Amino acid sequence: MLGLWLQDGDLRLHDDLPPPEPAPDEARVRVLTAGVCSTDLELVRGYMPFTGVPGHEFVGVVEDGPTDWVGQRVVGEINAPCGVCPACQAGRGNHCPTRTVVGIVNHHGAFAEQMVLPAHNLHRVPDNVPTEAAAFTEPLAAALRIGEQVRHAPGSRVVVVGAGRLGQLISRTLAVTDCELSVVVRSDRARSLLESHGIHTTSADALDPASADLVVEATGNPQGFAIARRLVRPGGTLVMKSTYAGDLTVNASMLVVDEITLVGSRCGPFAPALALLASGEVEVRDLIAARYALRDGVQAFAEAGRPGVLKVLVDMLS
Amino acid sequence: MLGLWLQDGDLRLHDDLPPPEPAPDEARVRVLTAGVCSTDLELVRGYMPFTGVPGHEFVGVVEDGPTDWVGQRVVGEINAPCGVCPACQAGRGNHCPTRTVVGIVNHHGAFAEQMVLPAHNLHRVPDNVPTEAAAFTEPLAAALRIGEQVRHAPGSRVVVVGAGRLGQLISRTLAVTDCELSVVVRSDRARSLLESHGIHTTSADALDPASADLVVEATGNPQGFAIARRLVRPGGTLVMKSTYAGDLTVNASMLVVDEITLVGSRCGPFAPALALLASGEVEVRDLIAARYALRDGVQAFAEAGRPGVLKVLVDMLS
Repeated sequence: MLGLWLQDGDLRLHDDLPPPEPAPDEARVRVLTAGVCSTDLELVRGYMPFTGVPGHEFVGVVEDGPTDWVGQRVVGEINAPCGVCPACQAGRGNHCPTRTVVGIVNHHGAFAEQMVLPAHNLHRVPDNVPTEAAAFTEPLAAALRIGEQVRHAPGSRVVVVGAGRLGQLISRTLAVTDCELSVVVRSDRARSLLESHGIHTTSADALDPASADLVVEATGNPQGFAIARRLVRPGGTLVMKSTYAGDLTVNASMLVVDEITLVGSRCGPFAPALALLASGEVEVRDLIAARYALRDGVQAFAEAGRPGVLKVLVDMLS
Repeated sequence: MLGLWLQDGDLRLHDDLPPPEPAPDEARVRVLTAGVCSTDLELVRGYMPFTGVPGHEFVGVVEDGPTDWVGQRVVGEINAPCGVCPACQAGRGNHCPTRTVVGIVNHHGAFAEQMVLPAHNLHRVPDNVPTEAAAFTEPLAAALRIGEQVRHAPGSRVVVVGAGRLGQLISRTLAVTDCELSVVVRSDRARSLLESHGIHTTSADALDPASADLVVEATGNPQGFAIARRLVRPGGTLVMKSTYAGDLTVNASMLVVDEITLVGSRCGPFAPALALLASGEVEVRDLIAARYALRDGVQAFAEAGRPGVLKVLVDMLS
């Protein structure tokens, strides 16, 4: 089959990949479309070792597997936990130490004509959600993870730092909660996209230091973290929503004196993400910057890696 | 009056300090005893600028002020907030940006015959609590702050890293909660003190990595933080309970991937601390390493600064 293959930081198109064979508890999915995520770009840059088919933001149709699922249009959770270890038994499968992660850790991903994943991971896409919107389910779920971890009081001052791919989704999910939201943006494109949804944008310097109850850092760079740290009030919460390329240096004493809570945040719940897409409360399709056919997948990665480019989709069937 | 005076990192005994005059909403307290805290030692080392009488862990008798308080044996909260700023109005006076802090920020402290503080800050010491035990109220309250910020599920695996002055108190307050507690100790003295209270002690290497639901870092050094980080499980919480001399370097990506919550923790509630002392649930007097008369206060600081020395009290009336 046709697919992208990553090895030693080299991403190439292959037309002779062996089609994946589902295990008894797995489903084979014909991929319709898949989004390029910052994590994919980091994998190519060698952020962590991965050999195989990347891609974890996908929509597809089940071709083979449990009969209830065959023919369904689906998205899929990306963590495949072992199910038996203490973390799994405690209901924390997303932190199973031997989990595979679709397209990231020991599990071939979505930038290919077909993929397999545990049937347990599948979610049916509501009929009224277009495929190109459903492709945002995984990052939208990651955005919703914040609300699972941190409850802000009604009317809280919330700031999102960064309005890239993930920052846009985080901002849009927070905008439908009861809070006073500001998003720190740098590009005109990011600003106009958010403002078209009625979301208040600003610059880092325009906000008072120590004025935000909750700050979400969505840039993944130390400058963004420094802005977030400056904006969060004593006793407030700073959510770290991006992976960082290197170590971060923090003034730990001031975290203690100011009683700041730092929260690392990763994958989130698919069902409410799909519900938000189905209800129309969160619109995502304006974030699509470009669509490429699978045969041009390497070019799609190059495009997604250009500064300021939002979501790039790769269509398998075109 | 007699008292210790800190200026430019130089701590000296003076016998001619002007007795403090209480404002209308303040009380004048004749100090009975005061404990030397790591923060006091850091002030002398120049951790933050302070000129005046240090000392914030004290017990005294009200000499002058609101009539209800005169003659009462008291301890006192150390933050004196402005009462009118947004933080104060939101109930976060301990984070008032213009607060004074007894013996630490713009407010003369307890290593002197007399001190003043807002009557609002006073707490009466129950009759059955000896003065030398009540001297631990402030750090015991700081230990209890953890329970205000973080709720652990019954039976949780909790680890305290460090068994110095504060680590001992933290361990003892956690030991009376429903958890599986281990304390990482280095000195035989710290170990035997904890074990005499039935608290399980261990070494960092004896605990499995990523095995603790909640870790409290009470060493204030990067090595202790590294141990704490290694022990906390994915999805777990790491409370930072000490001030750190320098910046701390953290692997931010792993905080995100493992969804760790870091919580800075400072001052805590006095009333439950006094209740724990009054009920005898937490014993503290075995932590007293030495007592000095005020005239030997500089020597008391030197003793408190020696490695492994626990609480040193300075008695004003001896």
